[in-house]
Parts: sequence; structure tokens; C-alpha cells
Amino acid sequence: RRGEMAKSTQLIDNEVFRAFATYTAIVLLKMMLMSLITAYFRITRKAFVNPEDTATFGKGESAKKYLRTDPDVERVRRGHLNDLENIVPFVGIGLLYALSSPELSTALLHFRIFTGARILHTLAYLIPLPQPGRGLSWAVGYSVTFSMAYKVLKTAWLL
Amino acid sequence: RRGEMAKSTQLIDNEVFRAFATYTAIVLLKMMLMSLITAYFRITRKAFVNPEDTATFGKGESAKKYLRTDPDVERVRRGHLNDLENIVPFVGIGLLYALSSPELSTALLHFRIFTGARILHTLAYLIPLPQPGRGLSWAVGYSVTFSMAYKVLKTAWLL
Amino acid sequence: RRGEMAKSTQLIDNEVFRAFATYTAIVLLKMMLMSLITAYFRITRKAFVNPEDTATFGKGESAKKYLRTDPDVERVRRGHLNDLENIVPFVGIGLLYALSSPELSTALLHFRIFTGARILHTLAYLIPLPQPGRGLSWAVGYSVTFSMAYKVLKTAWLL
Repeated sequence: RRGEMAKSTQLIDNEVFRAFATYTAIVLLKMMLMSLITAYFRITRKAFVNPEDTATFGKGESAKKYLRTDPDVERVRRGHLNDLENIVPFVGIGLLYALSSPELSTALLHFRIFTGARILHTLAYLIPLPQPGRGLSWAVGYSVTFSMAYKVLKTAWLL
Repeated sequence: RRGEMAKSTQLIDNEVFRAFATYTAIVLLKMMLMSLITAYFRITRKAFVNPEDTATFGKGESAKKYLRTDPDVERVRRGHLNDLENIVPFVGIGLLYALSSPELSTALLHFRIFTGARILHTLAYLIPLPQPGRGLSWAVGYSVTFSMAYKVLKTAWLL
Repeated sequence: RRGEMAKSTQLIDNEVFRAFATYTAIVLLKMMLMSLITAYFRITRKAFVNPEDTATFGKGESAKKYLRTDPDVERVRRGHLNDLENIVPFVGIGLLYALSSPELSTALLHFRIFTGARILHTLAYLIPLPQPGRGLSWAVGYSVTFSMAYKVLKTAWLL
């Protein structure tokens, strides 16, 4: 029993792994928030994509007009897809990075910059801020993941 | 040699981690199934998006008419994207949760409800079931991931 | 201090895990490359989706004409989404597979074939190659992930 507990807690006892867990939970929750914002805009803008979603607005032609795209909804959806494209590599490469024995301070720097950059990216997309605001925040997050991938490949390389 | 074996098998010997591995494999296989369903509808509805995919139907104008969208294909694709948006956070947060020493019974409850909710979500999307069937199954899966994220942040918090 | 180091490096000392880390970093970097290719085509084809992205081309009607879709941009985006749909299951199931004590040679075979298949898939999509080139490369990667999922479920099964 005790041996099992020790086994299950060892990774989470490691400080770099705890930092990775904290920032990964935060960026994934931020990504999940995009679903709620999409739902909010779909309901307030009355812009749906599935016929069954418009049933509460009546039947037939009266409901059909709500089957439409809305610029605000589409904007949130693009931000959501961009999150998937960038947060998936961060989580996958970040996990391997956290297991490659980086210095805690270096790891924290990577995780903090990525998380800050992705929050800025979402704000830049939704407000929206003029370019290059969104472009730069995207590039910063991208570079952090690239830097972690370099450390992973240097440490683990076995082809 | 023996030491290496022990190292590599220790996580998979942990019961919570075995449960996580089982349910994660199931939901990811379910997500992969969406690709096959999309292919099935593309072929039976003759609705393609790439010119090179219609070459078997002849050349030029006769093939060009199959470059079109089909409501059934688009429906499956939306279900697939919704899977990505929800199963990615489950896998990432669920892994950290499984390493945060939860009770086996609590962990199983989370994994089972999420997996059931996502299977129901797919059925509700593809049949389709009237709302709020799809909405509720989405919300249940979302809440499970949120609950796991709370446990992860409570256990690992290192900002 | 030493105990902590040992803890943090143990997974990365395992050869199967090192191979998994190497190939996962490679396929995730390949997926990230799709963002750069999309940006390249958006800029060279002058095809944007956000009004704020066209501001450098002037204001009003003169910039508005660059808010359009372009076949090359859309093709890269489809390749990127297909990567997400297939590389996410590979990373999730592959991690569990790497922890399920497979033979190193068997694991390397899985990782190498998947990585090769996904690189071929991208080439087949972007050039584009005539079918069934893209279809076959997709099916090979899909089968590798399926094979790893089978091993994971056989090893970990706890429902």
C-alpha cells in the first residue's frame, strides 16, 4: 500500500513537474473557456449551425433564419482552433521537457512566458487588438515550445 | 536489465494510472472513429474537398461536381472537432490528475462519467437527438474535466 | 537533492521512453510547421481572414479585397487539421504505450512507421500527389496508433 502511494506521488513531488502541471492546467482551462465564449456568442447573436439547436426559436422557416454564421462567433472559433494548434504541442513537448531534468528556474521561465503569451493571444484575437499584437503573442508562444523541443531532443535523442 | 524493467512498468502498475490508460485509449479510439465515419459519408454521399480525391469519378467537369459539401459530412466533422476540443483537455488534465494520487474509486467515477458523456455526445450529434441532449452530454464531460483540473491545481500548485 | 534528480530523470533514462520523446518531438514540430506554411501562403497569396490582418495593405475597400479564401491556404489548413486529428491520438496513446513495457525494437518500429507515414501524408497533401498516396499514408499512421492502443488496453485494462 505504502509502496503504491510512493509510486503514484513521485512525479507530482518533483518541483518542475508540479510547475508543468500547474501551467498546463491553466492553459487547458483557458482553451476550454473558448467553448463557453462560443456558446455565449451563438446564443446572444442567435447564430447556430445545427437545425436541432434552433428548435427553441420555433419551427420551420422562423427558426431556419438562425442557421447562419456570425463574425463574432467565427472569430472565437478561430481563436479556439489556434489554441488547439499551439497548446497541443506545448502540452506534449512540455511533458517530455519536464521529464528531461531542466533547471526549475529555466522551466518556470518557459511555462510562464508561454502561458502569458497565449492569454495575450486570446485577448488580441477577441478585442481585437491591431496587428502585430496577435502575431507577436503567437510567435512568442511558438518559440517557447520550440525551445523546449530542442532541450527534449538534446536529452532524449534515440532515433 | 531488471532495474530498467521495473522503471518502465511502475506507472502502469499503479491502479489509477491503469484506469486512466484504459479510458484514455477508449475515448481516443472513439475520436479516431470519427475519421472513418467522415470517410464513409464522403464516399457514400460523393462529397469531396480535394480535386485529386474525385479522380476515380472521371476527369474535368464530370468529376468537379463531387467537390461539394454535404450536411451529413459536415455534421460528422463538427462532432470530430468537438471531440478534439474536449478530449485533448481530458487527456492532458487527466494524466496530471492520475499522477496526483486520487482515490481509485473517485478517479474511476471521473473517467467513467467522461467516457459515457462523450459517447452520448457523439450519438446525440450523429442521430441527431433533439436538444438539450447534445448540450447536456457536452456539459457533463466538461464538468468532469473541470473537476479534475481543480484537484490537479490543489495538489500541484507551483506558479 | 540527489533523490530528486534521480526521480526526475528516471523516465527519460528508459530507452523506449527516450525513443517516444524523440519521435513525439519530431511529429509535433512537423505539425507546428503547418502554421508557418499557412502564414507563408496567406502572405504570398494575400488571402486573410481577419480584417486587422489586412491593415498593412491600406484601409477600407482597398484592404477588404484581401479578406478571401485561397485554395492553397485552405489545402495547408486541411493538412494541419488532419495532423491534429491523427497526431493527438498518437501522442496520447503512444505515451501510455511507451509506459506499457514494449520491446524497444517493436516500439521503434511503431514510432518510425508513424513518423514516416505522417511526413509522407503532408507531402502527399501539399504537392499534391494523386490518390491513393495521401489515403494510404493516412491509413498506415492510423493503423500504427490502433496497434499501440491494442497493446495499451491489453496491458492496462482496468474498467
